[in-house]
Amino acid sequence: MARYALTVSYNGIRYSGFAKQKNLPTVQGILEESLQKIYGLPIRIKYASRTDAGAHALGQVISYDVKKGPEIDKIPDALNGLLPDDIRIISAREVSRDFSPSKDAKLKLYRYIVYEGKNLKPFLRGLCLFSRTRLDVDRMNSACRVLCGKHDFSSVVVKRDQKENTELSLERAGVMRCDSFPIDGEMRKPSFGDFVVFELEAQRFLYKMVRSICGLLIEVGERKLSVIDVVSIIRGEKKWRVRVLPPDGLYLVRINYGENLCFMR
Amino acid sequence: MARYALTVSYNGIRYSGFAKQKNLPTVQGILEESLQKIYGLPIRIKYASRTDAGAHALGQVISYDVKKGPEIDKIPDALNGLLPDDIRIISAREVSRDFSPSKDAKLKLYRYIVYEGKNLKPFLRGLCLFSRTRLDVDRMNSACRVLCGKHDFSSVVVKRDQKENTELSLERAGVMRCDSFPIDGEMRKPSFGDFVVFELEAQRFLYKMVRSICGLLIEVGERKLSVIDVVSIIRGEKKWRVRVLPPDGLYLVRINYGENLCFMR
Repeated sequence: MARYALTVSYNGIRYSGFAKQKNLPTVQGILEESLQKIYGLPIRIKYASRTDAGAHALGQVISYDVKKGPEIDKIPDALNGLLPDDIRIISAREVSRDFSPSKDAKLKLYRYIVYEGKNLKPFLRGLCLFSRTRLDVDRMNSACRVLCGKHDFSSVVVKRDQKENTELSLERAGVMRCDSFPIDGEMRKPSFGDFVVFELEAQRFLYKMVRSICGLLIEVGERKLSVIDVVSIIRGEKKWRVRVLPPDGLYLVRINYGENLCFMR
Repeated sequence: MARYALTVSYNGIRYSGFAKQKNLPTVQGILEESLQKIYGLPIRIKYASRTDAGAHALGQVISYDVKKGPEIDKIPDALNGLLPDDIRIISAREVSRDFSPSKDAKLKLYRYIVYEGKNLKPFLRGLCLFSRTRLDVDRMNSACRVLCGKHDFSSVVVKRDQKENTELSLERAGVMRCDSFPIDGEMRKPSFGDFVVFELEAQRFLYKMVRSICGLLIEVGERKLSVIDVVSIIRGEKKWRVRVLPPDGLYLVRINYGENLCFMR
């Protein structure tokens, strides 16, 4: 028995999210169907991070166990030949038998993309949020500095479960302005352009947390909230009506498993 | 009676081309439906250029006549409110009663986008051609210099009609390499990156001519044809099996009507 881990990129527009659901098109469902064709038996995959309906991934990580089958180097091409072209296997490797794509994740990096303009460009349909308001990037970066570090994030998320541990450490948060469609590539320094890109990195995120933190940051960028408001909100001293941004602009960029096992794109 | 001209951008993925066809989704069909809602009567539009099923436009130009209705400044927002988000009205203006979007066009600029890489990125589905072969941009630009100017292009297109006048002047042709998704914006000098962008400009093009000229150029970039071969092909001395590239990578960028009436994006 061997355990394989694959890095997967997908355009979530056509899918009801990553995680399998009965009678709905999901990325996990399609992946498991294709794996079954290759191995000739049902394969159940594990994954690093559940992504919502309509959200995207550049570097989702999945794992599965098999007894025999094609060599690991052949897996990406074999799967890509079967998969629809909005799901691509980027890489494959053998991992230790105790590897867990979710539990072993040291850091997860998410990106959220906003396009500012008079009209959303038809080509960016489903791929970013559209804003007619000019966002103040410096102000949003000040708010990012407030949000970074260890906090109880319960005041900025939609609570699913009262018992959930809402304390966690946001390792990195930042907002950048770019002049071209910034799905991948390393983000550079804040500059000019009509695209505003949010990056958030943490070991774990709460339910729809990236989309609600970006919602909070956008209200700062729109000058509806001050940086001081953000301090009060995160401390639980001020109420904020949670604004969850649509999934269109959300990308799971990469999962970092530490020095020895880092799944980049 | 007034004649209005609108600049329209659309993502062609969901449409069977621009021109109206019975029982098929077309951009013209959708535009006329929305115009009918605004004016309360059937409106027939004229257009600058027919685009094929799956091809896109940044700056298609359409015109129509009306007796009365909303002010011209209100038309883009009113229409955009009714149109699906893969079709956007960029601008509107009143034009003279004898304006024809096709006949008055002085130059039409088309762009064709190729992405080079191991895998097509899922986000570029339907928006560019994917090539695993590294294309030689310098070589393609040498071929562009051969193709520019007045020629009988019958040897590089699919002939629809023996009587068609296949002599025309290709005013500009060039190939650029970019490092980010280059749908819009002015193209800069050839540089680095995984995107290869073709630009062709002429007053008129023959049936599927942009896609077949780019097919010819790609064979030059793949080193299947030499620049000398292109000279022989365009002179009709050497046969070439016309290679029409898929419509995914094709964009009608803008129509130039001369100094007094230039419809830019």
